[in-house]
Amino acid sequence: MVKGRLEAFSDGVLAIIITIMVLELKVPEGGNWASLKPLVPKFLAYIFSFIYVGIYWNNHHHLFQAVKKVNGSILWANLHLLFWLSLMPVATEWIGATRFSKNPVAAYGIGLIMCAIAYTILENLILKSEGENSRLKEAIHSKSKEYISIIFYISGIATSFFYPYIAIGFYYIVALIWLIPDKRIEKLLKED
Amino acid sequence: MVKGRLEAFSDGVLAIIITIMVLELKVPEGGNWASLKPLVPKFLAYIFSFIYVGIYWNNHHHLFQAVKKVNGSILWANLHLLFWLSLMPVATEWIGATRFSKNPVAAYGIGLIMCAIAYTILENLILKSEGENSRLKEAIHSKSKEYISIIFYISGIATSFFYPYIAIGFYYIVALIWLIPDKRIEKLLKED
Amino acid sequence: MVKGRLEAFSDGVLAIIITIMVLELKVPEGGNWASLKPLVPKFLAYIFSFIYVGIYWNNHHHLFQAVKKVNGSILWANLHLLFWLSLMPVATEWIGATRFSKNPVAAYGIGLIMCAIAYTILENLILKSEGENSRLKEAIHSKSKEYISIIFYISGIATSFFYPYIAIGFYYIVALIWLIPDKRIEKLLKED
Amino acid sequence: MVKGRLEAFSDGVLAIIITIMVLELKVPEGGNWASLKPLVPKFLAYIFSFIYVGIYWNNHHHLFQAVKKVNGSILWANLHLLFWLSLMPVATEWIGATRFSKNPVAAYGIGLIMCAIAYTILENLILKSEGENSRLKEAIHSKSKEYISIIFYISGIATSFFYPYIAIGFYYIVALIWLIPDKRIEKLLKED
Repeated sequence: MVKGRLEAFSDGVLAIIITIMVLELKVPEGGNWASLKPLVPKFLAYIFSFIYVGIYWNNHHHLFQAVKKVNGSILWANLHLLFWLSLMPVATEWIGATRFSKNPVAAYGIGLIMCAIAYTILENLILKSEGENSRLKEAIHSKSKEYISIIFYISGIATSFFYPYIAIGFYYIVALIWLIPDKRIEKLLKED
Repeated sequence: MVKGRLEAFSDGVLAIIITIMVLELKVPEGGNWASLKPLVPKFLAYIFSFIYVGIYWNNHHHLFQAVKKVNGSILWANLHLLFWLSLMPVATEWIGATRFSKNPVAAYGIGLIMCAIAYTILENLILKSEGENSRLKEAIHSKSKEYISIIFYISGIATSFFYPYIAIGFYYIVALIWLIPDKRIEKLLKED
Repeated sequence: MVKGRLEAFSDGVLAIIITIMVLELKVPEGGNWASLKPLVPKFLAYIFSFIYVGIYWNNHHHLFQAVKKVNGSILWANLHLLFWLSLMPVATEWIGATRFSKNPVAAYGIGLIMCAIAYTILENLILKSEGENSRLKEAIHSKSKEYISIIFYISGIATSFFYPYIAIGFYYIVALIWLIPDKRIEKLLKED
Repeated sequence: MVKGRLEAFSDGVLAIIITIMVLELKVPEGGNWASLKPLVPKFLAYIFSFIYVGIYWNNHHHLFQAVKKVNGSILWANLHLLFWLSLMPVATEWIGATRFSKNPVAAYGIGLIMCAIAYTILENLILKSEGENSRLKEAIHSKSKEYISIIFYISGIATSFFYPYIAIGFYYIVALIWLIPDKRIEKLLKED
């Protein structure tokens, strides 16, 4: 099966997820700058989630560049990832509307961890499908980034009940780790 | 006529359908867990419909992989399928907002049965267009899955007026039947 | 310049237009059938507009199949068409919410006529770009369908101030004329 | 890395941005023409922003036609541009809802200037990636259009605090400058 439609459908869903988050930035009633003030936490939450969805799009893009064939399991693992990502706008809205209060920040972290797990499942199924000796397997044989992320997410969720802003800091570090697209795959593609 | 744009347009519509359903998960006012409680039935309805739209995308994807050419009738049969699928967010919202009460669950079932009929029409037109001796015809000569689905849908709709949760069970069984993408076509594509 | 992205962008916009119209079908408060009653005119308006946008997508698809190259003017003529089509959801909502009353039905007709003019401009620019002796020129040398449509639209708009339902009838006839994708182009493509 | 998915994802986001702006045109309560009156400033703002997003799509389309390869920095510079463009619907809503009052018009101008900066960064990264001696470099060696735009935007923002309508005039002139897609690139592509 060709991968073109899986990529196109994922691009569509991710484009919508990233864009509908902006719908939450409800326009203020008045025309003065002060009326923008309640938008500030929502705007920060929007920037944060935009970067996160951007990271997932970038890594998805890199991962599938190296994929040769897809099968039924990969299609469903991809939909599973899209499901968790589709909850990002709701979680973003909640942290924005409650000004980064405890439970919403924890819920946001749980959402991020579910996305990370779904991405890892997808990656593993692709590695399995590409075969033991594939060059992709060689390229991403180390999963340290994946494991470090999980640890930081769990730390963030635990912290969120006491200091939500520090929890956001933990999530932010994971974002920084992944901001640079997978050099391992980029290197692999260059060798082609 | 090439099939590329039909696939791209369908992917776009399905991506939007699957994503706008999440807009119904209106963020709670407060920041405590209890405020999430009214979201629970809506969230369950969302998961259920996400899986259903995912199944249609998967099968649409499989079906068109085996298609060589499209014509005007296929374009319209495809739009007809997309029309019924586009009502899924409304039906999902209704069952979620009324906590799976009788009439909404019946209406949801009617929606599902219309999608199933529209899909069968599309499949038949494609088979007709591909020709009597095509390999696709050979691959999906048995329509038992399609017939069983219709029977379960009708049973679900009938039951919904008495026990809506059992009706959801019937719809759920159909989902399970179709969850595995069409092995018949996958086998066919492998032989190429 | 290649036409791929123009088609992809148009597909995206048309997919969104056709799908956001469904957002107007606001879910009823109660769970009984009677609560669906206010949705009936909105639902009829939705079906009507879905068919219209479907027709435009179909004809756009047919037209660009025969196009070899695009230029800046064609890009803008296409955006101009998408602009008028993007107003369809608003017009649909207005006729649905006012139960097909006079002014909204006239406004809807004006919207349709602007789409028709924009489509004709696009078609002319493409014909000009493809060259005097192109086969596309030969295929759509007769513009009778375009002229008949304009006449019916004007009749519809004039009638809408007295009998809005008859006006809808006029618009409906135009839809029927265009429902069958452009056989002239389909024939041309088959000869390739 | 191939550029196909970057283009597809950008098309998706731009298609959504251009279309969700229409959601702001809330349908009037009544069915008479007078009830359309409050929509007039919103409609003008919509037309204006539609043209602006259309210009960005056109130039994005032209720019990437001449691109041969993309890398991680280009992916992020592109997401950065999409981020600022995604704020266009909010800014459009604000100027429409406040009938082009001072602060919203200034905010709109700041949004436009950020888009222009993000586009310039993207262009520079592409030029750097394509190499010193690339023909794209030769084609867009003069950046006068980019510099004139920035000057007009700043003039517009400064003016907006006194005469918002004149500020809109400044933004409008920039639109006119860019309305014609990049002839420099179009010429380059023709030579191929």
